[in-house]
Amino acid sequence: MKKGVVEELEKIVGKDRVSTKTADLYVYGFDASIHHKNPDVVVKPANTQQVSEIVKLANKTRTPVVPRGAGTAMCGHTVPLKGGIMVDMTAMNRIKEIRVEDLYCVVEPGVVYDKLNSMLKKRGFWFPTTPGSGEACTIGGMVVTNASGMRAIKYGATRDYVLGLEVVLPTGDIIHSGTRTLKNASGYQIDRLMVGSEGTLGIVTEITLKLAFKPKASAMTLAAFNSLAEAGKFVSNVIAKPLMPSALELMDSVCIKAVNKCMNVGLPDVAAVCMIEVDGHPVAVDEELKIVEEIARQSGAVHTEASKDKKRIDYWTYARKAIMPSLSRFGEKFVSVALADDMAVPISRIPEAVVAFQKIAEENGVIIGTYGHSADGNLHTKMLVEPDSKESWMKAERAVGQIFDKVLELGGTVTGEHGVSITKAPYMQKERADSIAAMKAIKKALDPKNIMNPGKIFDWEGSIIAHLRYPAFLEQEDEPSPRGPGGVDEKAGSK
Amino acid sequence: MKKGVVEELEKIVGKDRVSTKTADLYVYGFDASIHHKNPDVVVKPANTQQVSEIVKLANKTRTPVVPRGAGTAMCGHTVPLKGGIMVDMTAMNRIKEIRVEDLYCVVEPGVVYDKLNSMLKKRGFWFPTTPGSGEACTIGGMVVTNASGMRAIKYGATRDYVLGLEVVLPTGDIIHSGTRTLKNASGYQIDRLMVGSEGTLGIVTEITLKLAFKPKASAMTLAAFNSLAEAGKFVSNVIAKPLMPSALELMDSVCIKAVNKCMNVGLPDVAAVCMIEVDGHPVAVDEELKIVEEIARQSGAVHTEASKDKKRIDYWTYARKAIMPSLSRFGEKFVSVALADDMAVPISRIPEAVVAFQKIAEENGVIIGTYGHSADGNLHTKMLVEPDSKESWMKAERAVGQIFDKVLELGGTVTGEHGVSITKAPYMQKERADSIAAMKAIKKALDPKNIMNPGKIFDWEGSIIAHLRYPAFLEQEDEPSPRGPGGVDEKAGSK
Repeated sequence: MKKGVVEELEKIVGKDRVSTKTADLYVYGFDASIHHKNPDVVVKPANTQQVSEIVKLANKTRTPVVPRGAGTAMCGHTVPLKGGIMVDMTAMNRIKEIRVEDLYCVVEPGVVYDKLNSMLKKRGFWFPTTPGSGEACTIGGMVVTNASGMRAIKYGATRDYVLGLEVVLPTGDIIHSGTRTLKNASGYQIDRLMVGSEGTLGIVTEITLKLAFKPKASAMTLAAFNSLAEAGKFVSNVIAKPLMPSALELMDSVCIKAVNKCMNVGLPDVAAVCMIEVDGHPVAVDEELKIVEEIARQSGAVHTEASKDKKRIDYWTYARKAIMPSLSRFGEKFVSVALADDMAVPISRIPEAVVAFQKIAEENGVIIGTYGHSADGNLHTKMLVEPDSKESWMKAERAVGQIFDKVLELGGTVTGEHGVSITKAPYMQKERADSIAAMKAIKKALDPKNIMNPGKIFDWEGSIIAHLRYPAFLEQEDEPSPRGPGGVDEKAGSK
Repeated sequence: MKKGVVEELEKIVGKDRVSTKTADLYVYGFDASIHHKNPDVVVKPANTQQVSEIVKLANKTRTPVVPRGAGTAMCGHTVPLKGGIMVDMTAMNRIKEIRVEDLYCVVEPGVVYDKLNSMLKKRGFWFPTTPGSGEACTIGGMVVTNASGMRAIKYGATRDYVLGLEVVLPTGDIIHSGTRTLKNASGYQIDRLMVGSEGTLGIVTEITLKLAFKPKASAMTLAAFNSLAEAGKFVSNVIAKPLMPSALELMDSVCIKAVNKCMNVGLPDVAAVCMIEVDGHPVAVDEELKIVEEIARQSGAVHTEASKDKKRIDYWTYARKAIMPSLSRFGEKFVSVALADDMAVPISRIPEAVVAFQKIAEENGVIIGTYGHSADGNLHTKMLVEPDSKESWMKAERAVGQIFDKVLELGGTVTGEHGVSITKAPYMQKERADSIAAMKAIKKALDPKNIMNPGKIFDWEGSIIAHLRYPAFLEQEDEPSPRGPGGVDEKAGSK
């Protein structure tokens, strides 16, 4: 980073909002992924104007800029691969408007998902995508990763709720795309392009979201199966009925064992469990609950249990939410890591996918827990890795490659909701081979100096187990990255 | 157009699929807008490969290319302002897949909306956006204009249903963006950028759409009001209840008189009528119908009439659909034209908007019929113009400017669902002033030679009453356009 940048940043936001302390740089080098790299400086802007000035400074000095919300990204989105300025957006956390009569709200990017929903629910509305990290993740992060979650099957992903964005472009210019109206056909929908662009096209500074009506009632059924294939078949039978669940979560035996061990929730010890939520008018909920149980039995369920009791449902939800931390306590030497953590296949291909993943795990001698939002074909596979063993990582990486090859063979995508960044870059480049050049052209048009979150998505080359966060690997940070020495690769945009 | 282009096109698609006949060129110079301009040649490709070769030829010879579906666009989208090649996409009209168990279908761009829905409804599904021109308009056209219609309030616009696209870029390269899965976070969502790009970034050759479940029941209420302001207030009272209608159409007295006169439908002769549809579970429909009637009475309705009778509902729908043709028979000297035909405001601003439009009409001495999908804030104002009177056009244009200024003042957009093209270009450029440069940068990155539908959206300068389709104005076609002589403006992309 060029000299004087820190001092300029202090002029823009004030000294107390800039840090170059080692401890801060180290902490901001993490997100929820396997990667780590220190930024050169952390800055915490308070408003759009400050963000604009920070980006203008970065543009002038060709300094990399990485925007960051809560750091819950799973694939390295906020890991500053080329160092530079880490822009912590969490101070911009105002809910600016809630207009239920106009079905929209306006928020700053640092607003936390659950906090927004607690405000909306009081008025009978919600933003229903329900990401797993909802307690912590920010709306800004959700927008730039097109995040979603267990209720996307019925309610859609973040992209379906963005009505408008204020964005600071890589030039520092502030633009507004979209509107405060539900419909819009007014020129290029740059807001929709920004959704899922992972901080590589600018910094989102304000978001207008469409509101959804909170359903009057909801209920849940738990169904247990003796094979993953039967559970997968159940999922597609529900959709083909047709019956629209508001959530349909699947857990395999690895996940069931893990949560039973760690949380003592007492899930049936079977090959697979599904948790099905239906919502809407109370009469419809009652009817659909019965239909779901019938489909479960016809699909081979060995046990079903429907409930409208909030405590019971909370308990199941708790079990589902506990998968990720529980897997990390599966065996003493293992940690659960986000490798091949997220993929989606057409719904009817779920049985094939889950069976194939288990086979790949066995053949490679790795442990994989499979779970996910199966009604929309979105699965998560968490790997259990011995963090300090290079061999363990190599086995895991081999399995990841095979898993994603299978996903693409089934007509799927290598990421349904977590995004690409580093950990999925080579596989996404395979999936999207024919449109990489168009992505690069758009990137170059809007960010000719390649300052915004460089080295990610189409701009990553090499292994995904690079810049590892684990102690035995942390020294590699000082080694040259696959793209050459740190700092901005001026040619990257023109490739 | 350069010599030899026609012969090359014949080699690509065969002689019977290419025409330079005067009658064909004249007919293809129209869409549903006020504009007209002949292309140099019309070509009708049968598959993606042929589209790619056509565009490669155009790129090599710098020939303008305009893709066209059913020609139902209201703002000049398919009028070939710079001449060149008109690509008629209606021969690519196969429904390639309907996968209800996977909640998607794959269609070619020339498939007609109602035809697709008649296939889907047999299986219990639909593509519910419901454009007014559904009997004729093509899915390809809907995608590139982000079309929607009366059910968008509950079900969203076309952008909310596009899961993936195959696109021939301006280079002739074929790309695939998005997937056959419901969720996707795999790199830039170029498919969402293509939605609403009005044929300026490429030609869509295949569309993967999300399917929605057809509701089990629906019903409608008609409510009559003695003032437009009360009708507008009723609309926002419904939403604020909160109650989600599947449609909520508004018609002012001009529209009511027109359909009563032409179609003899016997609507109440009042200042405004609303038609409210609710759908879902039969029990919910019954309950909501009663609530809607209650809200109508509280909002000042002088007459309400609820019905679940299909014949009665069809009759009302017929009246609603008859507005456009009926307005053209309002008075002998007038034609109804698409000027300020489409705008959206935040829902609660509808009363202000409709009252302001009437005032603007009176002050300018023009007749305006206002109707629209008012639950989502989307209004349509059709002007009645004396087609051969320059003075009448000038008055209309002045009124358009004032209408759109008011819309922007109310926090709205100058187009909710019809798009920009020519007729809304100056107003859209006002609305989106700070993002025009970014749109141009994206356009230049993907279409450096500016061959795709040139002269539209951000690339239009001058009056909107140019290239008029009406006999007294048709000669102006041969005059220079505001951008200089016909053909590709090589500098346009670099502005």
